[in-house]
Amino acid sequence: MTTEHDLAAAGLSPFCPNFHHAVEVVGRRWTGAILRALLTGSERFHEIAETVPGLSDRLLSERLKELEFEGIVTREVFPETPVRIEYRLTAKGRELAPVVEALSTWAERWAEREGLVHSDT
Amino acid sequence: MTTEHDLAAAGLSPFCPNFHHAVEVVGRRWTGAILRALLTGSERFHEIAETVPGLSDRLLSERLKELEFEGIVTREVFPETPVRIEYRLTAKGRELAPVVEALSTWAERWAEREGLVHSDT
Repeated sequence: MTTEHDLAAAGLSPFCPNFHHAVEVVGRRWTGAILRALLTGSERFHEIAETVPGLSDRLLSERLKELEFEGIVTREVFPETPVRIEYRLTAKGRELAPVVEALSTWAERWAEREGLVHSDT
Repeated sequence: MTTEHDLAAAGLSPFCPNFHHAVEVVGRRWTGAILRALLTGSERFHEIAETVPGLSDRLLSERLKELEFEGIVTREVFPETPVRIEYRLTAKGRELAPVVEALSTWAERWAEREGLVHSDT
């Protein structure tokens, strides 16, 4: 099977704890959509909340804390009135862009093939 | 920010329901590790179970059913004695290889930078 050989050629072992941790963090419910919002320019809490339909403030706050803990997001507080808080991706977070792009390409391709989206007619 | 522009250039919208669904499926707890096992050649239930430490048979069975439902995995039963069951990635599943590779590269790179793995001394 070509894919197996490709992955073997890429030096992929059947199991890797680093990969496992990464997929568990990035794949946590809502986190993918939050990362995509941050990668496409959202910086404020409510910007992200508005970008991701169905995401509650409580869960967004929880996920942002997890991403901060993982060194993927920084939270900066600007002592203005009212206080301004900005979330930004770190270098580690920005380097997730190829992953988001690869999954996005896959998702679009298969949604089209399976007729789940309409072409722009 | 370069990444933003890159993602904008790649035509990424801040939110996409197809991406959101994909990340929720592929990111579900244990699913990433199961996909990696399948992509690197595991075919039998117990092969996958042995490849992924900590994964219970109950959850593996549940995840495989979800992946089957999503058209990512096929389950083939061979009427032998004892019966042989093989799980294989469909074309849709095999095309997840670049996503697994991209995330794997990212995970290894940052584990090294953060000193979470030892170089092979």
